[in-house]
This record gives sequence, structure tokens and C-alpha cells, in this order.
Amino acid sequence: MTAETVFTYAAPALKFGRGAAAEIGYDVRAWDARRVLLVTDPGVAATGHPERVADGLRARDLSVVVYDGARVEPTDASLEEAVAFARAEGPFDAVVAVGGGSAIDTAKAVALLVTNPGELMDYVNAPIGKARAPEQPVLPLVAVPTTTGTGAESTTICVMDVLALKVKTGISHAALRPRLAVVDPQLSATQPPGVLAAAGMDILCHALESYTARWYGEFDAKQPEQRVPYCGANPIADLWSERALGLLATAFRAAVRQAREGASGTEAAEQMALAATFAGLGFGNAGVHIPHANAYPIAGRVRDFRPADYPQDEPMVPHGMAVSLTAPEAFRFTFDAAPERHLRAASLLSPGVSVSAGRDVLPAVLAGLMQDIGIPNGLAAVGYGAGDVDVLVDGALQQQRLLATAPKEVRGEDLAGIIGASLEHW
Amino acid sequence: MTAETVFTYAAPALKFGRGAAAEIGYDVRAWDARRVLLVTDPGVAATGHPERVADGLRARDLSVVVYDGARVEPTDASLEEAVAFARAEGPFDAVVAVGGGSAIDTAKAVALLVTNPGELMDYVNAPIGKARAPEQPVLPLVAVPTTTGTGAESTTICVMDVLALKVKTGISHAALRPRLAVVDPQLSATQPPGVLAAAGMDILCHALESYTARWYGEFDAKQPEQRVPYCGANPIADLWSERALGLLATAFRAAVRQAREGASGTEAAEQMALAATFAGLGFGNAGVHIPHANAYPIAGRVRDFRPADYPQDEPMVPHGMAVSLTAPEAFRFTFDAAPERHLRAASLLSPGVSVSAGRDVLPAVLAGLMQDIGIPNGLAAVGYGAGDVDVLVDGALQQQRLLATAPKEVRGEDLAGIIGASLEHW
Repeated sequence: MTAETVFTYAAPALKFGRGAAAEIGYDVRAWDARRVLLVTDPGVAATGHPERVADGLRARDLSVVVYDGARVEPTDASLEEAVAFARAEGPFDAVVAVGGGSAIDTAKAVALLVTNPGELMDYVNAPIGKARAPEQPVLPLVAVPTTTGTGAESTTICVMDVLALKVKTGISHAALRPRLAVVDPQLSATQPPGVLAAAGMDILCHALESYTARWYGEFDAKQPEQRVPYCGANPIADLWSERALGLLATAFRAAVRQAREGASGTEAAEQMALAATFAGLGFGNAGVHIPHANAYPIAGRVRDFRPADYPQDEPMVPHGMAVSLTAPEAFRFTFDAAPERHLRAASLLSPGVSVSAGRDVLPAVLAGLMQDIGIPNGLAAVGYGAGDVDVLVDGALQQQRLLATAPKEVRGEDLAGIIGASLEHW
Repeated sequence: MTAETVFTYAAPALKFGRGAAAEIGYDVRAWDARRVLLVTDPGVAATGHPERVADGLRARDLSVVVYDGARVEPTDASLEEAVAFARAEGPFDAVVAVGGGSAIDTAKAVALLVTNPGELMDYVNAPIGKARAPEQPVLPLVAVPTTTGTGAESTTICVMDVLALKVKTGISHAALRPRLAVVDPQLSATQPPGVLAAAGMDILCHALESYTARWYGEFDAKQPEQRVPYCGANPIADLWSERALGLLATAFRAAVRQAREGASGTEAAEQMALAATFAGLGFGNAGVHIPHANAYPIAGRVRDFRPADYPQDEPMVPHGMAVSLTAPEAFRFTFDAAPERHLRAASLLSPGVSVSAGRDVLPAVLAGLMQDIGIPNGLAAVGYGAGDVDVLVDGALQQQRLLATAPKEVRGEDLAGIIGASLEHW
């Protein structure tokens, strides 16, 4: 093989800070937009943030239509519904998404399909969809996250459950990356502690997975048309991941503790918003691997687990929690592919930690943190048993795009070892 | 005053690595371009790199017109000539600039003026020009640097000498930022040691000046329409600046030494390309201050200095050299505005350095580096004397946009102290 010599980096423009969400009207007007679709979900709509953003748009003489029907954990059906709404109410010049990853991903699908022909499944990753590339420019999208976790404001993917196939997949194309990310910590200031903990583990795993991803120069050389947004660990993604880990080291426990005490808008909470942004800018170019691959079936096959601080009407394993539950064992497995990176990550997360225990250091740091912030003690605590390992392995094996980003080959038996050892962590 | 709470960040998409310049045809075709203007200067054209890039564009069925008349250190006249060429030969769908900051800045002016009405001076910063904002989208620009220094591939400015007024100014607008930066270390692999040293000091000062710039939260709160691309030091610019300093610490002396020995394409040279890119991504959002302000008159009022490794037909103080010559004294002056940042920068540049000497540490680290890489020993060595201090101060005072980014107030007497103490460094 010829080794790859090139890496790529792209990111939305960013506006960060208290009050940033009040300026979106100005930013959208600078794109000559007149008519804007605002996408959100009912839970976020109830906070009043989307309406305040809409008011700010109207104050700049923009015409705004609000779609508050985004589904938490989008499905092909929920995305199609959003697209149908936008096609019926359009044309629009721009889309503004206010919410977590679900609202932002819904807005990505809408921005793609209101200017491009065909239907959702035409653009979904093969083999489930036709992996068609957009022919027309996608509507410009402003992503306004209200949780500190997903990094969806920086990424090129729209994740969805395909209901008929009971499988999670997505659309992945550079054109889906938002043009502008507006991160206003006031919008994520009141996350309950359980949400902050789960979403924060998503941040942490974004940083750790992209930091330990296979190095871009260890892939085969690609032709330009073969390049994808995720190119493996690289000098720029490293920068973001390391800084996100450093921010989490000081802010994560404090933010959860303060949220438990009812404090909001603290310095630690603002640092979590910055960490989420930084980790998103990193993994949005490097990629993620085993913990995220495992998270798909862990979330998808939930039986009756209902986490605190989330809506209680349906069982769910929140995305960040699902990602975290096999992370300690995943990093024990990947350790030998890049020992110095695993130890450096552990040191960034827990400055001064002794690294003499080698492969066990990062797993111990993670388990200690998870315990402190109230993440369940392994897969057993969210309802899985030894008899579920095989079906979870099968689900993770379907995420070959993610597994290929791991720093070493990942076989079914490796996943069985990781998942089997993740039933209980402490 | 109400303190600013928001910072902004924007950057071109980036493709970095050996071979990246061969792929530009693919990237430009992805924008639906068919007809491309390639801008370069005669010296760069002689290296053959622009023609190879043009061949790569043609291989993707793009029609290419080459303009190799960019002037090193552009003037209003040279930019007008380039614009006239482009208007006569156009229309074009995209511009590709291959060269140093001069070629890239020339391409920015062209990209602006082939789609917008009016003339160059309409868009030049007030009070010299009319500071008009572009009404029409600027042509998409690919910037392909061939020196490791200016960071022009990441910035929103086009610098020029206005001949009739004997003043350096520019056009500054977010629309001027290149859409794509292609950094192929093969194109900067053969810089002679003198060029590598001077351009490397430009990298270093970009990193140090943006790292020590006034913190974004210490400016008055701005309305969205008042925001400029340079918002002062901020958490993201810091990240780039710190990493650039770390790369320079290991690569700068080695790259110059290897260039003196005739080696090309070394690991250290590639690290310099990465450092230049990182520093550009940092100062392209934070800004620079005193050393860059001083560099304008230092370069502009040159009498007969002719540096090694540069064309000998005209006297010149290369930009990076001009920036560096007052840097040690500038950072001695700014030290007390942010002592910990100056010491941290010194430690990044010279790991293990004792910081007990406080304000003198960073100046000593800089002077030691300048001596090792062959930068002249102060303003006297490039032809200035004590009698020139006042006129250099007057020239620097015209750069109020830059001086406002300094971490403390800078008066004429402060500049006189800095410039007067910079006649000789060691």
C-alpha cells in the first residue's frame, strides 16, 4: 500500500459566548436570506429559547416559520415529516436549528432535501440507502446547540433510525456541515444533572475516540474523490481533543455537582459548552470508533431503562450514556495500538495520575469519573445481561464505518470481550 | 462600559500534506467551476509549482488562465493591474493563488473586484479608501502558500502600499478569506535559509502577538454589525498559537540549519509549514499588534539594505524580518499586561527556560533564536539609526487598528522606547 500523506480539516464559522444567540438575525441577513425555517423539538420549544431566537430573527425583518416537530432520536419517518413540512411551507433561504443533536440533524436533512431532488433514502448511506451526493447547494444552516454534548453543530452527519429495518444509519456528506455554529452557554445553562452527565460523556468520548483513532497516515492513500470528512487522527483534531480533555478535567465534575445543587449558568457549565464545541471540531474531522459503534445497539435495544432527568414516557439509554458504557473496556482493548496516547489522555483528564498501570490507567480514570457523576455502573445497570452480548456485538459490527477508524482491527470476538466486560465497571 | 462576552472564529477549509496541491482540480470542480484564474508572481512561477498546479486543474477539464504578474509587496497599482487583467480575460468561476502572501493578497483583490462594482480604492480601509463592503459574493479562492510564513491563506486581509501616499494599508473583510487553503509542504521545501528564517519569524510573531493580544472580553461589547474578523485573544486562537509555538520550538532552528546544509523537504521543514498554518488560523481571528505595526515603517522606509537569499535588485527588509526586529522590546513593554502569558510563551518556545527574570525572559529567548537563525542584530543592522526613531514611530502610529489589539495602551513615547531600544539586541 501507499500511505496517505494528506489530511483535511473543515469547520463551521463559530460565534461563542453569552448573548451570541441574539445575533443570529444579523448573521443570516448577511447571507441575503429573507425567509427562515427554524427547526426545534417540543422539549426545547418549551424552554422558550427557540421563540427568543425567532424573535431575534424577526427583529431583523426576517420572516420565520417554526417547525417544532423534530423527534428526539430522529427516525426516517420523523425526518420525512420535517422535510414534507419544509417543502410545503417553503421556499426558505436558510435554516436555523435550535436544540440538541436531534434538532440539528433534522435540520440537516431538511436543508439537503428542500433544494435537492429525490427522497430521504436516496441520500442515506449505502447499503441501506442509495448514498446519492447532493447536486444542488444545500440551504445554509445555523446550528444553535442547547445541550453540551453532541457536537452536531460541527459535523457532516445526520443520524437516524430506519424504523422498518430497526437499524441506525445516516446521511454523511460535507455539504451537511452547518455554515455557522452559534454556541450561547445561556441556552445550555439549565441542563439537569443527569443530562449534563450523559451529554458530557459524549463530549469525553468524542475527544478520546478521535484522539485514539487510527492516524491519518496509516490509511491507504486516497484519491481526492475518495476523501471523506473523517480522516483519522491528525495534528489538528489532536489539538481540539487535547484541549477538550483539559477543559473536562476541571469542569465536568464541578458542572454536575453545581447542577445537582440547582446552580445554573456557572463558569463550569460554560466550560462544558466550550469543551463540547472543541471536541466536536476535533471528531468532526477525525472520526469516532468502538464506543460509538457499540452505542448504536445499546441505545437501540433498550428494554425498560428510564434514566433520571429524561422524559419518562419511553424507555431510553441516552446517547452519551450509551457511548460511555463500554468506553473503559474499549480503551483497555485499544491501548496497545497507541499506549502513549492513552496515557496522555488519562493524564489530561486526571492530571498527576500515575501511569505505571499502563493499559488500566485510562479505564480507571473513566470509571472513577462515571461513578462520581452518576453514570450507571455498566450495561447490567441499564438492563442488559450476559445473554445480550451476542446481539449487541452483531449491532456494533454493522457500524463498519466507525470500526474502521479504530486504531487496530476490531473483530466480533474483540467486541464480545469489550461488551462482556462492560456489564459492571466497579 | 459593558464588557464583550462573545468571540468569533472562522477559517478556510484546509487540505494539508505532501501531494495536496495535485488535488486542487477536484476541489474546484466540486464548486461547479469551469474557468479558473491562477495568480502567482514571476519568482514563484520560475519554480514550476504554479504550472504544475495549472496542469492539475486542466487534467480535471478546467480551463485555466495564468496571471504571473503579482508584485512581491503589492501596491495599489500592481493590484489594479491584476484586476484589469482578470476583468479583461474573465469571466472566471474561481481563483487559485500559488505563492507567498503577495500572490495570495493579489488574488484576494481580484476575487473581490471581478464580481463587485467600483474600483480598488472604494474597498480600501478608511480614511485612505472608502471601506465599502462587497455587495456581491466574492469569487471562491484557493490559497496555496509556497512560503512558510504569512498565513495569508487564513486571513481576511489584503495588504498593499498606496504609492501616492507612501503608506501601507489594506482591504479587510470577512468575504476575503479564502474558501480553501491547500498547504503542500513540497511547495515550500526549497526555501533558502534566509527566507526560512525571516518568514519563520513572521510565524513566531503571529503566534506571540495573538497570544498576548488584548483578551476579547476586555473590549467593549459590540453590536453584531461592529464585529470584525480580529476579536482579540480568545480560547480558540490561544490553542493555535500555543501549538505553533511548540512546533517552532522543535523545528525552527533545525529547519534553518538543514536549509543551510542544502537539505530540502525535511521533517523540520514540514513542521514549519504546519506551524505557519496553525499560527495563521490563530492570528487570523485574534489579530496582531506592536511588532506588526512597527514592521510597516521598518519595511517601508528601507534605504539600501539587501538581505541574503532575496532578490538583490531592490533594497528591502523582508516582512518577517521587519516584524521581528522590534519584537523583543515590544514584548518587554507588554509584559506587565499579562505576565503569565509572556512567561508561558517563553516556556513553550524554550522548554525548561528559567522564568525568574520575569519581563526579560521572552525577549532573551527571542534574541537568542534570532541570533542562531541569522536575523540581523536590530534596526541598526538594516540601516536605521537613532535619528530615524521618530519617523518610524510616526509610521507605526498610523497602524491604530493593530495598536488597538495590544494588551495595553501604546503611546508614541512607548513606541519610541521600543524602537529606540531595538537598534541593537545583543
